[in-house]
Amino acid sequence: MANVLRNSAKFGFSGVLSQLSIHSRHGRVCVSPCFSLQQRNNSTSPKIKVDLDSSTGVAVLRMQSPPVNSLSLDFLTEFCINLEKLEMDRSCRGLIITSTLSKVFSAGLDIMEMYGKSPERCGEFWKAVQEMWLKLYGSNMATIAAINGSSPAGGCLMSIGCDYRIMADNPRYSIGLNETQLGIVAPFWFKDTLVNTVGNRAAELSLELGLLYSAPDALKIGLVDQLVPEDQVLSTAQDTMSKWLAVPDHARQITKSMMRKQTIDKLLSNREADITNFVSFITKDSIQRSLRMYLEMLKSRKA
Amino acid sequence: MANVLRNSAKFGFSGVLSQLSIHSRHGRVCVSPCFSLQQRNNSTSPKIKVDLDSSTGVAVLRMQSPPVNSLSLDFLTEFCINLEKLEMDRSCRGLIITSTLSKVFSAGLDIMEMYGKSPERCGEFWKAVQEMWLKLYGSNMATIAAINGSSPAGGCLMSIGCDYRIMADNPRYSIGLNETQLGIVAPFWFKDTLVNTVGNRAAELSLELGLLYSAPDALKIGLVDQLVPEDQVLSTAQDTMSKWLAVPDHARQITKSMMRKQTIDKLLSNREADITNFVSFITKDSIQRSLRMYLEMLKSRKA
Amino acid sequence: MANVLRNSAKFGFSGVLSQLSIHSRHGRVCVSPCFSLQQRNNSTSPKIKVDLDSSTGVAVLRMQSPPVNSLSLDFLTEFCINLEKLEMDRSCRGLIITSTLSKVFSAGLDIMEMYGKSPERCGEFWKAVQEMWLKLYGSNMATIAAINGSSPAGGCLMSIGCDYRIMADNPRYSIGLNETQLGIVAPFWFKDTLVNTVGNRAAELSLELGLLYSAPDALKIGLVDQLVPEDQVLSTAQDTMSKWLAVPDHARQITKSMMRKQTIDKLLSNREADITNFVSFITKDSIQRSLRMYLEMLKSRKA
Repeated sequence: MANVLRNSAKFGFSGVLSQLSIHSRHGRVCVSPCFSLQQRNNSTSPKIKVDLDSSTGVAVLRMQSPPVNSLSLDFLTEFCINLEKLEMDRSCRGLIITSTLSKVFSAGLDIMEMYGKSPERCGEFWKAVQEMWLKLYGSNMATIAAINGSSPAGGCLMSIGCDYRIMADNPRYSIGLNETQLGIVAPFWFKDTLVNTVGNRAAELSLELGLLYSAPDALKIGLVDQLVPEDQVLSTAQDTMSKWLAVPDHARQITKSMMRKQTIDKLLSNREADITNFVSFITKDSIQRSLRMYLEMLKSRKA
Repeated sequence: MANVLRNSAKFGFSGVLSQLSIHSRHGRVCVSPCFSLQQRNNSTSPKIKVDLDSSTGVAVLRMQSPPVNSLSLDFLTEFCINLEKLEMDRSCRGLIITSTLSKVFSAGLDIMEMYGKSPERCGEFWKAVQEMWLKLYGSNMATIAAINGSSPAGGCLMSIGCDYRIMADNPRYSIGLNETQLGIVAPFWFKDTLVNTVGNRAAELSLELGLLYSAPDALKIGLVDQLVPEDQVLSTAQDTMSKWLAVPDHARQITKSMMRKQTIDKLLSNREADITNFVSFITKDSIQRSLRMYLEMLKSRKA
Repeated sequence: MANVLRNSAKFGFSGVLSQLSIHSRHGRVCVSPCFSLQQRNNSTSPKIKVDLDSSTGVAVLRMQSPPVNSLSLDFLTEFCINLEKLEMDRSCRGLIITSTLSKVFSAGLDIMEMYGKSPERCGEFWKAVQEMWLKLYGSNMATIAAINGSSPAGGCLMSIGCDYRIMADNPRYSIGLNETQLGIVAPFWFKDTLVNTVGNRAAELSLELGLLYSAPDALKIGLVDQLVPEDQVLSTAQDTMSKWLAVPDHARQITKSMMRKQTIDKLLSNREADITNFVSFITKDSIQRSLRMYLEMLKSRKA
């Protein structure tokens, strides 16, 4: 747990990654840092910037929502709209996802989407999380995550939704589906995606312990494919993309679908139940009480 | 085969691990050392000793049934009763399994449970083997195997039924599902558990050749998670357990169930057929003849 | 792609491994080198030579169809007949497959079986490809591929259909299911066999990029089991086979079936649909046009 807390400091939002005791058989059920807290602003400036190079057919999608690219409903909606536009654009064949922020790729789901919200709103939020993954994991484009900072929980899900992962060779950056550390449970489709990426046993250990892997450790278990110096993450992604685009699109797309269809179909045919599960969990009095205490603690720290 | 026989010596019960020729398409069908032979004693002294430290919530289960912790019906029954007690005890969150014997963790199933017994009794025995695995693989406790000696066949099954495996760094100790070497076949749920642990290809090689891995080789393929000096196996297990117990129980338990439920359900829904298969195989005249010859050979050696 | 073309040179049939542009969303759809082109000869000399050593029970099957052991309908028919004979021969327990040709194990499916042929004939051809894999992957014999040269596409399928793979330690030799590079798609049962061998993630990368692995890289991902000097490939296969035959046949066979049955059954229950898919793809005007242009290019090169 100390490790998790240390990460919170790294993300630069002290106190965000704390823990709350709620009822459980043995001890604590905690919430964080898969749930990151954005400083609210009412700015309508885009959280995502997309540049499509029509000469290469490669789009770079930059996440630029400070402080930590939290996955809020607004963020996810903007992300999905951009993804869909690129998917429909025949001149776009490859997508690179990266962050404009220092030290963080994405800190995962936004806690404010889950506190004091109506079940309807929580359901809408979870549907957007599903949508992000469905669009990304099933994309016809070649997709590369240029992971230039830490990438816990939802940020990790986004990364393993891509075809290839290049991470900054910085042992301070970590990546992983660490939900369990925080008392919550990664849903089955997070799990399936992780198993597809690192195999059953590494996924089992990783999920049961809620492990965050340093970049070098992530490479060892195959959670990322390649480490490069921090200032070469994007350029390496561009070089790698040209290799992916040398493969005939149609054959690559059919092959990708053959590899991923079963995993995607499993969520598609359980989508409503998965939303119901999430909403029923997150709207529990005990969980909401914990979130409130947690937020109050944050406020008192700021004061 | 020489290797297997060498292991028998290591276990300290000469002649126990021998082979019998029975009918087969090509050459031999053999029995051992997944079937180990206990020296009979009518002692009612417990085969298992459990110490629960209520301050840490960690129980240590010591197998203490000389010479080789054979999995007899009595042993398995005692094992399951102890497991169930701990499972029901809310003060117990973690379980470490180890052996009090020198050089052996467990040598696997007891041959005497399969010779000259009625089909009913054989079925009862097999049901106890299933029960041991079902209880262990599906336990809500965090479970660590502290493998301080060799662990073939049933001993290996017990190990891979845990959440984590720490083995003595002694190249003389071996572990593996070596049933095939002996002319018998690991049932599908042994196979599923192994595939979940080391992946499909390593499991295929391992099961088709009935391989026993030395401790270092077992680490290489991921059959165990960690090697430590022999005198540090238990203390390392204790240290590791504290990391597992730092994870909120409820989230870890749901995650574990998500990872293992499908494998467990497969046995649950085929349990009777699996018993029938085992009984029909083991009560065959040819197999029983082989067992008799084998036991007579053992007696003549003793004389 | 340069890499693929370089391989074509290695195979010694310049121009055979070229590419054809056909319609696709983005750029090229290519054909080769999974489709190799045999120089036609009307020779009725056998394409395959089998030597069974009745003292050891080991058969060596030598592929001897120059220049590149293309898998034509004739070749596959001869291969399957030989396999079936050995399967029925109770004195034969092990099979080693190797090549008499320099530098190539097998270059894969024969392009001439797919150009200008009737749908019926194409279907007959594809059925023979299925039959080769079904017989090999499900063989009761212990099977070892002694890969003494390059082994792309269909050659790789043949290799991963065996129980064990020993490859010449020559970085110029490559192996892989590279269909995607060429604009075609490995069918689901190629994919399943690869996943069973190297795991899901390595298979995904391998199939989406149509990767050919050098011998050392193939060893790293587990696509082959062992590298030995080129002149020791066959002798090592013989030594290894004796270890496989030390395992009781019956137990090994049941275990092998337990590991592979599900994958085999998937093709068996979709066999006709798989043939229909192939025929419908390969007889498309666009594909046939591409094949014609390709063959004309080859002719003009020869002139």
